[in-house]
Amino acid sequence: MNVWVWGAGSSAFGKQPAESTASLVRLAVLEALRDAEVDQVDAVYVGTCFGEPGVAQRTLHRLGIAGLPITVLENACASSTHAFHEACAALEAGRHRQVLVVGVEHLTSRFTGALPVERRDHEGRAGLGLPALYAMSAAHYQDLFGLTDAELAAVSVKNHAHGVHNDRAQHRRAVTAEEVLASRMIADPLTLLQCCAISDGAAAVVVGDRRRGARDVPVLATAFGTGAAWGHDSPRVWGFDLVAQTAARAYQAAGVGIGDVDVLEVHDAFTIGEIVTLEALGMAPEGAGGRLALDGHTVLGGPQPVNPSGGLLSRGHPLGATGVAQIFEIVRQLRGQAGPRQVAGARIGLVETMGGGAGGVDGNACVVCLLGA
Amino acid sequence: MNVWVWGAGSSAFGKQPAESTASLVRLAVLEALRDAEVDQVDAVYVGTCFGEPGVAQRTLHRLGIAGLPITVLENACASSTHAFHEACAALEAGRHRQVLVVGVEHLTSRFTGALPVERRDHEGRAGLGLPALYAMSAAHYQDLFGLTDAELAAVSVKNHAHGVHNDRAQHRRAVTAEEVLASRMIADPLTLLQCCAISDGAAAVVVGDRRRGARDVPVLATAFGTGAAWGHDSPRVWGFDLVAQTAARAYQAAGVGIGDVDVLEVHDAFTIGEIVTLEALGMAPEGAGGRLALDGHTVLGGPQPVNPSGGLLSRGHPLGATGVAQIFEIVRQLRGQAGPRQVAGARIGLVETMGGGAGGVDGNACVVCLLGA
Repeated sequence: MNVWVWGAGSSAFGKQPAESTASLVRLAVLEALRDAEVDQVDAVYVGTCFGEPGVAQRTLHRLGIAGLPITVLENACASSTHAFHEACAALEAGRHRQVLVVGVEHLTSRFTGALPVERRDHEGRAGLGLPALYAMSAAHYQDLFGLTDAELAAVSVKNHAHGVHNDRAQHRRAVTAEEVLASRMIADPLTLLQCCAISDGAAAVVVGDRRRGARDVPVLATAFGTGAAWGHDSPRVWGFDLVAQTAARAYQAAGVGIGDVDVLEVHDAFTIGEIVTLEALGMAPEGAGGRLALDGHTVLGGPQPVNPSGGLLSRGHPLGATGVAQIFEIVRQLRGQAGPRQVAGARIGLVETMGGGAGGVDGNACVVCLLGA
Repeated sequence: MNVWVWGAGSSAFGKQPAESTASLVRLAVLEALRDAEVDQVDAVYVGTCFGEPGVAQRTLHRLGIAGLPITVLENACASSTHAFHEACAALEAGRHRQVLVVGVEHLTSRFTGALPVERRDHEGRAGLGLPALYAMSAAHYQDLFGLTDAELAAVSVKNHAHGVHNDRAQHRRAVTAEEVLASRMIADPLTLLQCCAISDGAAAVVVGDRRRGARDVPVLATAFGTGAAWGHDSPRVWGFDLVAQTAARAYQAAGVGIGDVDVLEVHDAFTIGEIVTLEALGMAPEGAGGRLALDGHTVLGGPQPVNPSGGLLSRGHPLGATGVAQIFEIVRQLRGQAGPRQVAGARIGLVETMGGGAGGVDGNACVVCLLGA
């Protein structure tokens, strides 16, 4: 597609009660504009999940970004990847020429307790929040394919090891498989260190309809889809079909396959998520994704590093901020600016984000983006 | 533009604690699909302000609307008019062929107290919510142009008289100017009956990229803009410049002027809002809008009826639902289906919605749509 990422910015990620939605947006946007070497855009797309109405608009106005179309999207954890998708579509349609995309979430102030549960959300009323749903999926997967606890833990070990090299990451410390498995059980078989934490952060990118120089990173394709409700007795664990279908559309539009991808940022809100996602993206046959981290295939230095930023597990997962933070990482990687976590010679990068309904598994959304080359 | 409204639906509006976001969406969507005579769409755009994450997606999935792009937008009171604008733009760009647009808000369960106030929202911290800001604007306007309390009250009298004929309206009773002015003072000079109430509701329309028959209502243009911060000492009262600029773009795109418009639904969250908006739309010179309701120009039976549905004051204002409810009304009017509130021979209709930041006046957004002929 005729879209390029001109610049990217990000706040630090982590619990930051002294910051606000506005202050985080400010940090990310100013860095993105500076990195893109622009001081104006034609439109803004914002992804946020629990942001109070109007806060993005007010913050942008105070940065002097006023009088232009500002579109605020909510699509659970995929909110800002979806915003990126809409921004790219608007550029492709000729609606705008240079667009700012922002993802933000200040969870410590907004996510202060249990979510309200809809009357018809039978899972939510039974106490099945996302950790429980992912855990049920992981147990099902273990039963079907013999996935081991050690394979699950290896995902967390890998992503924490990567995050050590990311100065924006929430958890910058390496963990061992023993620590992961000995950490508090959240929802069997998922222990604490296999679950992402409450986090605050913002990220921003500037996208344009033309390449101005070698620093601008081509967007090859973006695809967005939503899934049908998932039955707990399905042989396919959570998200597999939706990710596979969305990725297939992105690969076709970009004219690349998984074998061409050098570096990936995917939705590891829970360890099982990364494993299933990588299978759905075609990196391993169904049931064989558990080996990818343990065997080193997806570790920095391996053939296809996954989540060099630390992923949701280590960089952190401020819901609406995550998608653009993933794009920020891929942009840095494709420009060779990733420092100690640089994937050598990275030419094509993939971003995948899953947005699950807050109270259940129907309401899934998925966005897959291919950048580079 | 090559976009037509194929069908429209709406729940009842009003305080409905026994309903939920999901049940209201269901009512509106099923009526819109039936009215459009379709059982499938390619994509969905949802506008909501305080909707909990994922609820629109879950509800749609339970109606069998699954596996397609669902975009949830927030833009304060203009959320679903903005969703309509984005849907029309997507159809124009050839991204989809038939799209569902939904607006919903279940305020009684979601808007349960004061909004959280951002640290940098100086107005909000001083207690200046929207009633106070509109009131300050009204007082300023009275001072500048001699607008009388009777002229303000006439807007409420008119819209309540219209709402009597709307079986979906929240307040279906006529009020006198004396009642309006004697009702409790909310923020000087705005009394209770000059302010919209807490309300729950949903509305939906189906839009397509082709005309299938005479019932399909052409969309002539939609325009969306955001405003710069408003200074309290500005000679222009709240919203005037933004509405005027947005309307100018819509008129130009549609090739029509205010004189061609037969019926309007505009943002009368407070009486002063309708007056300023009609001036900004060009119906009266600046400072002369107060006469429009009192003189009968905007009353049903007059030359250019405004808010035949009852408007936000009488039909009700469930924030995210309002924009599509306005479009619902205009569609009914242009098809000659408005029963006792029908504007005779209505050929061109205008919808205007203002979205103000929840905590202040910067963050304004405005959408203007022209339909018909």
